[in-house]
Amino acid sequence: MTRRDPGGNQEPLTYADAGVDIAAGEKAVELIKTHVRSTFRAEVIGGVGGFGGLFSLAGLRHRDPVLVASTDGVGTKSVVARLAGRYETIGIDVVAMSVDDVAATGAEPLFFLDYISVGKLVPETVDEIVAGVAVGCRHAGCALLGGEMSEHPDLMEPGEFDLVGFAVGVAERDGLLPAGVAAGDRLVGVASPGLRCNGYSLARRALLDQAGRELDGPAWDGADHSLAEELLRPSEIYAPALAAVREQVEVHAFAHVTGGGIPANLARVLPDDCDAVVRRGSWPGPRIFAEVQAAGAVPAAEMESAFNLGLGMIAVVGGDPDRAVDALRSAGHDAWEVGELVAGDGRVTLAG
Amino acid sequence: MTRRDPGGNQEPLTYADAGVDIAAGEKAVELIKTHVRSTFRAEVIGGVGGFGGLFSLAGLRHRDPVLVASTDGVGTKSVVARLAGRYETIGIDVVAMSVDDVAATGAEPLFFLDYISVGKLVPETVDEIVAGVAVGCRHAGCALLGGEMSEHPDLMEPGEFDLVGFAVGVAERDGLLPAGVAAGDRLVGVASPGLRCNGYSLARRALLDQAGRELDGPAWDGADHSLAEELLRPSEIYAPALAAVREQVEVHAFAHVTGGGIPANLARVLPDDCDAVVRRGSWPGPRIFAEVQAAGAVPAAEMESAFNLGLGMIAVVGGDPDRAVDALRSAGHDAWEVGELVAGDGRVTLAG
Repeated sequence: MTRRDPGGNQEPLTYADAGVDIAAGEKAVELIKTHVRSTFRAEVIGGVGGFGGLFSLAGLRHRDPVLVASTDGVGTKSVVARLAGRYETIGIDVVAMSVDDVAATGAEPLFFLDYISVGKLVPETVDEIVAGVAVGCRHAGCALLGGEMSEHPDLMEPGEFDLVGFAVGVAERDGLLPAGVAAGDRLVGVASPGLRCNGYSLARRALLDQAGRELDGPAWDGADHSLAEELLRPSEIYAPALAAVREQVEVHAFAHVTGGGIPANLARVLPDDCDAVVRRGSWPGPRIFAEVQAAGAVPAAEMESAFNLGLGMIAVVGGDPDRAVDALRSAGHDAWEVGELVAGDGRVTLAG
Repeated sequence: MTRRDPGGNQEPLTYADAGVDIAAGEKAVELIKTHVRSTFRAEVIGGVGGFGGLFSLAGLRHRDPVLVASTDGVGTKSVVARLAGRYETIGIDVVAMSVDDVAATGAEPLFFLDYISVGKLVPETVDEIVAGVAVGCRHAGCALLGGEMSEHPDLMEPGEFDLVGFAVGVAERDGLLPAGVAAGDRLVGVASPGLRCNGYSLARRALLDQAGRELDGPAWDGADHSLAEELLRPSEIYAPALAAVREQVEVHAFAHVTGGGIPANLARVLPDDCDAVVRRGSWPGPRIFAEVQAAGAVPAAEMESAFNLGLGMIAVVGGDPDRAVDALRSAGHDAWEVGELVAGDGRVTLAG
C-alpha cells in the first residue's frame, strides 16, 4: 500500500460509499450467534477462533467411512420471499436441498454451511434467514458449522438475496445408495406439500405474470391462505425419515426430486436394465400444481420436468412397500406406493 | 399434479419461456466433466450415480481427526470478469478463498464444491469458470467433489454470475491452529500480487467510476498490461506452502487476509494478552493498491480494512522467521518478516 494520504481534488471514497457496510455485517454476526449455537452437536469444536468450522471425527464408529457432500441453493424462491417480505422459512428450504441430497445416498448429515449474498446487508433480514437455517439444521440433526454473508451492491438490488447451502454427511461404504436396484422393486413416494425449491421461475411467470394473481391474494379461489404463504411453504426435510425407513425395510435407493422432476431424478438411480413406471394419480397432487398448470397453460410434460408434483422423495424398496409407507408416516411424512421397476433400459415413464 | 392438458386461451408456457434452459444445463455438465475428473484423488468414489459426491475416509491415518469446513465467494470480482468477458481464472479465486481458510487452521484440504448462479446459462462460460476451479483444486491438492449450476433469470441479468465455494479439510486435533500464540512471536507476510477477492466494490468505484479508467486501458500509466488483467489477477493459493512452512519452523497461527484486511484478520488469531505490530513498508506494496487509493482519494485506514495491501496470508511464527521466509519462497511465494507480537490486549497496529 501507499501510506500517504492521497491528494487530488476528489471526495475521499470509503467502503461505505461503495455500498459495503461493515458495521451491518458485524451486527448480523452478533444477531445470528444464538441460532447457530442451537444446532451444535457434541462433535463441534468451538472457541478456537480460527478460520474454519471444526467438527471432530473422534467418535466416528464406522468401519469404512465415506463422506458425502452436496451443494444447492433455493433458486428464485428467494424472489418470492423478497416480494412478500417474509424471510423466516427460506432457510429451512436451503437446508432441505443439500441435506436431503446427502441423505438420499444413505448418509447421516453431519454439518451444514450457508452462504448468503445480498444487495444490501440488513442485519434483521439476515437474522430471520439464519433463524430458518437453524430450524432446518436442528430438524435434520446436523450442525450449522459455518457460513458467509456477502454484500454485492453492484450485482443485486437492495432487497435481493441468494441463499446457498453445503452439507456433509457420513455413511458406511457398504451402506451407500443406490445399491441393488432391480426389476420388481416398488416405488414409494414421500409427500411434498408444496413446490419445494424447484420450478419457481415458471410458477411465478404463470401465476403472477400470466394469470395476474397477487401474492397477498388468496392462494386460489376460496383458499384461506395467501398465494405468498402457499409459494413459501417450507420444504420438507426428509433426512431423519429416510434413516428410519431403512431400519424397517430394505431400501435400494432414494431419489430426491428436485430440478428435472420425477423423471430426471428417478433416472439417476436406475441401472441400465430397469425402467421405472410411476402411476399418475396414485398419490394426491397438491392443488398448487394444478393452479400453476392452469394459470400458465403449461403442457403436462413440462409440468413433470419442472415440478415435484407432490413427491419430494421416492424410495426404491426391495422389501414390503407397506412397511416403508408405515415407517414414513410414523416419521411424520405422508407416503404412498406409486409404482414399480420393470425390465427395461433405464427410462422413467409416468403412466396412467 | 393434474393430468389434463389445461384449457383457456393463453399461450402454453414452458420452462424455457421462463428463462430456464435445461438443454444448456445438460451441455454444461458434459463440458465440465474432464475438468472435474482432473482433480480427483484416490479417495474419490465414482460411478455410484448418487446425489452427493463421495470421499472415502478409509485411508485416514489421523489419531484424532477433525474436519474443517469453510465457505466463501468471489464477491464482486465477478463483475470485473463479466465486464471484461474473461472467465478463465475466477474459478481459481473461488478455490483460494475457502481452501486457504481451511489451510489457515492447519488442515489439509480434502475436497471442494462450487456453486455457480447465472442470469442465463451459457455452457461455454460455465466451462471456462469450472476449468479455473479445477486448476485451483489441482493446485490446492483437493478434489472437486461436486457442484451446482443454477439459472436465475429474474434475479440476475444474462451476463451476471455469482461464484461460491465450499472446502473441507482434515487436521489432527492437536495440530489445529491457532495454538501457542504469544508475545515474542514474529510475523511473516506472504505475498499477494493483487487484490485477491476483497475490496472490489471499492476498487471499481474508485478506478472506473471516480477516475474514469477503462478496463481495456493500461493498468496504470506506462503499464504493459490492461486494468482488466490487473484486477483479474488470480488469487494465490497458499495451502501447499502453509503445510511446507510448518515442516520447517514452529508456526502458531496463520491469518488469511480477506475482508477486513490485515487488522481484522490478524486480530482473529491473537490471544487477549497480545498485540500485533505490523511494520508498514516492510514489504513491497503492489502498485494496484496505490492506484486505487489515489483514484478514489481513499483514506489510509479505509485502505487497510478493505484490502490485503499485498499480504494475502500472515504466519505467526514461534521459531526463526528467516526459516519461514525461506520455506515460503521455496514453495513459490515471496515472503517477508513484517512485524511481531508484543504484550497487549488483542489489538493490531500498523506502525511506522
